[in-house]
Amino acid sequence: MTSEFEIIERYFKKKMKQTALGVGDDAAMIHVRNNYQLAISSDMLIENIHFLKNTNPSHLGWKSLAVNLSDIAAMGAIPKWATLSISLPKINHTWLKKFSKGFFKCADKFGIDLIGGDTTKGPLSISITIMGESKKDEALLRSGAKINDDIWVTGQLGLASMGLANLQGQLKLPPRIKMKCIRALEIPTPKTFLGSYLSRYANSCIDISDGLIQDLRHILKASKVGASLLLNDIPCEKFIHTSKQYQFVLNGGDDYELLFTAAKKNRPFIKKIAKKTNTPVTMIGNITKKKALNILSEQGKSIKFNPKGFDHFA
Amino acid sequence: MTSEFEIIERYFKKKMKQTALGVGDDAAMIHVRNNYQLAISSDMLIENIHFLKNTNPSHLGWKSLAVNLSDIAAMGAIPKWATLSISLPKINHTWLKKFSKGFFKCADKFGIDLIGGDTTKGPLSISITIMGESKKDEALLRSGAKINDDIWVTGQLGLASMGLANLQGQLKLPPRIKMKCIRALEIPTPKTFLGSYLSRYANSCIDISDGLIQDLRHILKASKVGASLLLNDIPCEKFIHTSKQYQFVLNGGDDYELLFTAAKKNRPFIKKIAKKTNTPVTMIGNITKKKALNILSEQGKSIKFNPKGFDHFA
Repeated sequence: MTSEFEIIERYFKKKMKQTALGVGDDAAMIHVRNNYQLAISSDMLIENIHFLKNTNPSHLGWKSLAVNLSDIAAMGAIPKWATLSISLPKINHTWLKKFSKGFFKCADKFGIDLIGGDTTKGPLSISITIMGESKKDEALLRSGAKINDDIWVTGQLGLASMGLANLQGQLKLPPRIKMKCIRALEIPTPKTFLGSYLSRYANSCIDISDGLIQDLRHILKASKVGASLLLNDIPCEKFIHTSKQYQFVLNGGDDYELLFTAAKKNRPFIKKIAKKTNTPVTMIGNITKKKALNILSEQGKSIKFNPKGFDHFA
Repeated sequence: MTSEFEIIERYFKKKMKQTALGVGDDAAMIHVRNNYQLAISSDMLIENIHFLKNTNPSHLGWKSLAVNLSDIAAMGAIPKWATLSISLPKINHTWLKKFSKGFFKCADKFGIDLIGGDTTKGPLSISITIMGESKKDEALLRSGAKINDDIWVTGQLGLASMGLANLQGQLKLPPRIKMKCIRALEIPTPKTFLGSYLSRYANSCIDISDGLIQDLRHILKASKVGASLLLNDIPCEKFIHTSKQYQFVLNGGDDYELLFTAAKKNRPFIKKIAKKTNTPVTMIGNITKKKALNILSEQGKSIKFNPKGFDHFA
């Protein structure tokens, strides 16, 4: 019988690149540079809640880390370390091999050391804590949005929730975008590289995990401002416009794109860092003094929308 | 319907004492002092694996944090911050109120800020990451044991595993120690105060979570040494000796006492910090050059023992 120590040794122990003491003692030790602070975030992924049964384990390994990286990107910080706690119904070596491969593919791409965690028996769930460095007092908060700021988003919205609806048999997708939507759901790309430059130019930032509206509302509430968006400017697949299924763009979770606000004068710099990091960015509206969220149609009319995003307990 | 945001707001948001940015953004921000390193450890507790169904939620809240604090104590570090990810089958306000009360009772006693986490639907499980500070290069590692070191343990061993066996109907306990054993199982006291002094005087340290033998063997393997223990010196209830049920002392998990090794010349200092922090400590043997673990009976004979401790997958 393989023990939990052997699982860690075989699948989760890798050479550390930036860690004083890695896996194998009661705790890991890291050194945070002078004049830097540590950004920390934890996320838990549960089978049948956050991912479907029989999800490709390699994709799951990637996504588990990617969704955490997205939180660090949203702080404008540089991710460096992660812990991984995983509970498994039984030891399945094929599954573990694929899961760890996907996890480390993501870890290596974004420069993360896996420094510790836990392995135990239980219903399949994955709990990650991610840590990154941010220059002292330069973290990008939800509370920093200023009146007249441009509102920007990265990538395209709604892909992941369309992919999920398709896999659940609730949405038929044109063949040309089906795989794109499923890939957005299963192996999202965290906006780590753009995030690490954003603190210089943006005033506030959040990652879109619960849907555009709900996440934007977190910024508006924390910053005590409102916003006006142009529906047609929100970057999404043409299919959304032709089918009028805007709920995927406005309320769909799991996108892991960044939503940030920045002064108008910073437009050229934002375009420059977007180009440098190969990250598509789009302006979708602006921050208003009036504390309300307005979404305008092409005809300039306020559209009605569901104010709620994704909530696991709803 | 209560949302995950309302749960966090109502039960898990407290005033921060030592945290730059706490619960409520994409990540928390902390500042690690110059010349200090950060010790990080993660543990996951699952219903029916790590705790029995219907465990008192207040005790569970305490224990979830306590077992993590124990890892930081075993590094000789000072715990300061924790993240808590919790999955719940449904929102039960009575349960949440009690759980958070127990959690914060422990957090307040040991000076911990809860800085973030996640709340989601799923089978009951609790995943905590704990962080503490340790002076640069002063962390107590498993690999530091030296030949001729004394071997010390805190408290009494075997109580928690006797409590569990009793609750599971596998062990009848004398009434005078039954409650003591169940309390050791459900609300263990992490040796945080002693741990924070130990790095000056000890050479190696581990917390006893998987049983004395298994955890001592981690030290022996990492330090490339052996050990000799005197069975009768291991601190435990008299019941163990009269019933000869030494497996609870040698292999019982969940004790969360500290096992540490220190040079003989440090005996007076160790007794002093033990007294100062009100922590019982006992010498149980010494580190040997011969790479084996020997446990001697009162008659000086090597006793046979099960080399394995607790393994969730065994």
